[in-house]
Amino acid sequence: MPNYQDLLYEGKAKKIFSSESSDQVFIEFKDDATAFNAQKKSIFDGKGIINCQISSDIYRYLENKGLSTHFINQVDKNIILAKSVKILPIEIVMRNKAYGSLCKQTPILPGKKLSPPLLEFYFKDDDLGDPLLTIERLRLLNIVSETRLTEISNMARKINSLLIDYFNELDLELVDFKIEVGTDNYQNLILADEISPDTCRLWDKRIDDESRRILDKDRFRKDLGGVLDGYGEILKRIQYRRNKSADPCNLSMEQDFKKL
Amino acid sequence: MPNYQDLLYEGKAKKIFSSESSDQVFIEFKDDATAFNAQKKSIFDGKGIINCQISSDIYRYLENKGLSTHFINQVDKNIILAKSVKILPIEIVMRNKAYGSLCKQTPILPGKKLSPPLLEFYFKDDDLGDPLLTIERLRLLNIVSETRLTEISNMARKINSLLIDYFNELDLELVDFKIEVGTDNYQNLILADEISPDTCRLWDKRIDDESRRILDKDRFRKDLGGVLDGYGEILKRIQYRRNKSADPCNLSMEQDFKKL
Repeated sequence: MPNYQDLLYEGKAKKIFSSESSDQVFIEFKDDATAFNAQKKSIFDGKGIINCQISSDIYRYLENKGLSTHFINQVDKNIILAKSVKILPIEIVMRNKAYGSLCKQTPILPGKKLSPPLLEFYFKDDDLGDPLLTIERLRLLNIVSETRLTEISNMARKINSLLIDYFNELDLELVDFKIEVGTDNYQNLILADEISPDTCRLWDKRIDDESRRILDKDRFRKDLGGVLDGYGEILKRIQYRRNKSADPCNLSMEQDFKKL
Repeated sequence: MPNYQDLLYEGKAKKIFSSESSDQVFIEFKDDATAFNAQKKSIFDGKGIINCQISSDIYRYLENKGLSTHFINQVDKNIILAKSVKILPIEIVMRNKAYGSLCKQTPILPGKKLSPPLLEFYFKDDDLGDPLLTIERLRLLNIVSETRLTEISNMARKINSLLIDYFNELDLELVDFKIEVGTDNYQNLILADEISPDTCRLWDKRIDDESRRILDKDRFRKDLGGVLDGYGEILKRIQYRRNKSADPCNLSMEQDFKKL
């Protein structure tokens, strides 16, 4: 068990604790689920553990592919050790198919393939309801330089391409996802936050039914039930692949999941 | 009095009637005022006449400067004859200073000078609440070609520059404005709709007080009172300038205004 220090920040889905090193933090994945700017709330016992394992596997994969992420190590069932980064106040959304807010705000029909994928920026501000940003508004807010904006866009496109492959192998379709990025003490761009069914839309390619194939937070948003079943299905496929690749050090995580 | 034909369309602030020529329509400026996507409504007797005269003067000015507009002639106190155009379903907004929805959706402070002026596109759809469009969303909606989009942007910038001069001479500051454009039968880009205190934010440069200087629809939006006084002040300055330039054919319009 890590030696937790002070709670530095509590968000809707995670708690950040200081560690003995000022360059590193512990991130605890909470069981809380929120949607529609936290107007809808619930708690799903075990969601934190599932998301922590899914996100950790994805961040290890992205690190192996050369991405700079905040992930250092998973230190407990629902806790990772991560680099301390200064998070930029934007949500970066990449859409491979139209869904969600895009279809509520435009007449674009749900499920329309977006080619090239649509990269969007939202201002991270609960009071303002995380509004969509045009590039001009993003510039006016003076959050990032032009060079950094290009770097972020390239990183988002690379992550999308890597994640499509990652999920394809699991018979999952990546509809869209949200990432958050930050900078370390040396001003390097770092992928932070999490990548999980809370932050991705993932559809089961083995199922045609439009409701049943949803394995992500839309099960909660749309009151479809079986939220943990959806999340668990994703983790099960990740663990199956991991066990096939016979890395014995990962087996303990599967044991944790079986306890849920 | 023109020979009205059928009512072709009734919007929130205007009625469009067919004329004897299929290339031309009569546009009647209504006294109705709406704000916040028509959630707030009122009627101001005489607003239609004032806006028709202000808008007609502006469109004559823009035509003289080489802009292609739908304006043909003012045929009655609150009615113009205009070219029939197919309106594009976008609102084109140009902002010289931050105000209104920009400041509600971002932490940008009201009154911040925007240099260069901020050009924005909104999707004209009451049911969707006229949402802000990024350039990528505008492309996805397939409303305009890239060439047409460049043409529209250039036109908006030219109109802004011309209107800043126009209002400067009247001691009025153009904070922002909305225009709508369309195409004629030959696919030429045409400035349509109206330019008036309903569609521009105009501040009196002779007044420092932040509420009293407002002469536009914000007097209605913000319940400041004196809506027609504000609009009338703008028309008075336009008429004063016109009379100075001693064009006798315009005097009759001033008479109309005095009757209000």
